[in-house]
Amino acid sequence: MRNPTAAILIIGDEILSGRTRDANMHYLAGELTRIGIDLREVRVVSDEHAAIVRAVNDLRAAHDHLFTSGGIGPTHDDITADAIAAAFGLPLMVRDDARAILKAHYDRAGLELNESRLRMARIPEGARLIDNPISSAPGFSLGNVHVMAGVPNIFQAMVASLLPTLTGGKPLLSQTLRVMRGEGVIAAALGALAAEFSDLSFGSYPFVNNGAYGTNLVVRGQDPARLDQAMIRMQAEFGEKAE
Amino acid sequence: MRNPTAAILIIGDEILSGRTRDANMHYLAGELTRIGIDLREVRVVSDEHAAIVRAVNDLRAAHDHLFTSGGIGPTHDDITADAIAAAFGLPLMVRDDARAILKAHYDRAGLELNESRLRMARIPEGARLIDNPISSAPGFSLGNVHVMAGVPNIFQAMVASLLPTLTGGKPLLSQTLRVMRGEGVIAAALGALAAEFSDLSFGSYPFVNNGAYGTNLVVRGQDPARLDQAMIRMQAEFGEKAE
Repeated sequence: MRNPTAAILIIGDEILSGRTRDANMHYLAGELTRIGIDLREVRVVSDEHAAIVRAVNDLRAAHDHLFTSGGIGPTHDDITADAIAAAFGLPLMVRDDARAILKAHYDRAGLELNESRLRMARIPEGARLIDNPISSAPGFSLGNVHVMAGVPNIFQAMVASLLPTLTGGKPLLSQTLRVMRGEGVIAAALGALAAEFSDLSFGSYPFVNNGAYGTNLVVRGQDPARLDQAMIRMQAEFGEKAE
Repeated sequence: MRNPTAAILIIGDEILSGRTRDANMHYLAGELTRIGIDLREVRVVSDEHAAIVRAVNDLRAAHDHLFTSGGIGPTHDDITADAIAAAFGLPLMVRDDARAILKAHYDRAGLELNESRLRMARIPEGARLIDNPISSAPGFSLGNVHVMAGVPNIFQAMVASLLPTLTGGKPLLSQTLRVMRGEGVIAAALGALAAEFSDLSFGSYPFVNNGAYGTNLVVRGQDPARLDQAMIRMQAEFGEKAE
């Protein structure tokens, strides 16, 4: 059985302008690999209604899961929930369960659940809430689309709430051999190994260390025994120790 | 006159598996903002021929420029040049000028220009080479598509070779006001300012500092005088100092 596939959609002008360096893609990529969901594509789009709707509809149709990051706070530029509702053709309204969660949170803090904060209780009809243990305002899952906050510690907390509810597959395993030779020297032999072990995927990642060229050879696959076999052959071929 | 628009396409399984954290998107986003090219979208796809071809054709049609990162080295998994040539329906062959550049580089290093390394001289017909002062193997521009290496220091060197040849627009300027209040408190007034200064774009980015909620309010636009006006109003409204 094949693993479920996934895409990530990062929403935010601050990433595209270079002001903020996204951290959520890398974090979620690692978590998905760990539970056997194959991340196939990532997109970053601006805070523009039409761009978000188009990307959501493309990606939810093409993959088993779509995870989004950003745009669900209380300010005027937080338009992700509106765009998700529009993408599904569903109404977006303040929902009682989400409002109760926010009310309890702001009551505890002695703060008012004002109109701006109440925006965060607007949830598309039929969505399931995603728990936010940091700042309470929930994310939500609608069909195969999982909508989460952009602030990295809140995003990570929501991922931790969400992932145990999803069915993963076989984790993608990897082993790395670090070789102090340039890619151009090892490319032919590596290509031959990749052809021989065609059920595995071989990657080659060059680096420079104190002026000397080296390459990290990474072999990936789902069967640990096959990875071990490939690793033994790589060590024999390239003659250095595994990390 | 509107600014030119752009997209970035990052190619590589190592990003999607979470093994490597991409650095090139953030770097190029900042450089494009500086010269007035509006980055509208980023995609990350795997080392898969069909996925690369599809993304290249989507993005080069939708934007004035497409910048790609990754997959132009000497190993079997470096398939970007093949995919670009296929996307344009053009032949891909070892080109004399690219071969001469590689030959001179490997001669200087006392190394052989073997078959694997020669892969890096395969350039689609009609492309212009992009200089690589680090490791010599060139990138290339074909139409509005600019193909560069994934290794960050080489990517940055290629960007430095390429950008002066492109026509930019008005740089997108920004000013930031750091406010030690949560987004929910300032959202309504900020939304009103955003409506009043509708020629500018206002973003709001929450943070937590020693347990206290704060928000960076960012105003962006092309006219420095308008940014100053907006900043004066934000300072009056939210009463703190600009960074």
